[in-house]
Amino acid sequence: MTDIKKYFEKSELIPAIVQDAGTGDVLMLAYMNEHSFKKTLETGYTWFWSRSRGELWNKGATSGNMQEVIEIYADCDLDTLLIKVVQKGPACHTGSMSCFLNKVEENSKNE
Amino acid sequence: MTDIKKYFEKSELIPAIVQDAGTGDVLMLAYMNEHSFKKTLETGYTWFWSRSRGELWNKGATSGNMQEVIEIYADCDLDTLLIKVVQKGPACHTGSMSCFLNKVEENSKNE
Repeated sequence: MTDIKKYFEKSELIPAIVQDAGTGDVLMLAYMNEHSFKKTLETGYTWFWSRSRGELWNKGATSGNMQEVIEIYADCDLDTLLIKVVQKGPACHTGSMSCFLNKVEENSKNE
Repeated sequence: MTDIKKYFEKSELIPAIVQDAGTGDVLMLAYMNEHSFKKTLETGYTWFWSRSRGELWNKGATSGNMQEVIEIYADCDLDTLLIKVVQKGPACHTGSMSCFLNKVEENSKNE
């Protein structure tokens, strides 16, 4: 196993951005701890830490909407991950491909 | 001002993914509090909360590498933002266009 401890020096949980490897769409953001990152590397599918449920979470294990990992990048200060995936089915629990569907209105700039 | 308080109900700081509106490349991730989000909406350029410096941070104000906001989306549970921008110059303080340049080796899966 690669030395993944360096990503968790500042925090036990770090954000992982999930991006569609084909379209470039940002699908979701979830959190990883060291254990879930290790499972992701070992299995080639995404594992996260669910903050609300307080447990490891294999994305798609229940819904079937799994994410096959294509590439993983860490950012310049090693506290955020970018995971490029092939997404099976919708990424969002609402049934949408991406979780980022709530547009913040532009006119809110001037209100 | 639009009701932006709803994004900060669970946490004072939320992650904001910055994506190049043209290429779809994910450039960086930084954190926003309510004040920085308000400034972003008001000015049309990105403002963040620097966790290390403990202060508001107008991205590019010093370097000139500013981010013009094109669109903003919130995710399904309203605790993460996706900000599509036109990036002037490199996004990363290392001089790279994107902060996500540290590839996590694939062979770490089986080591």
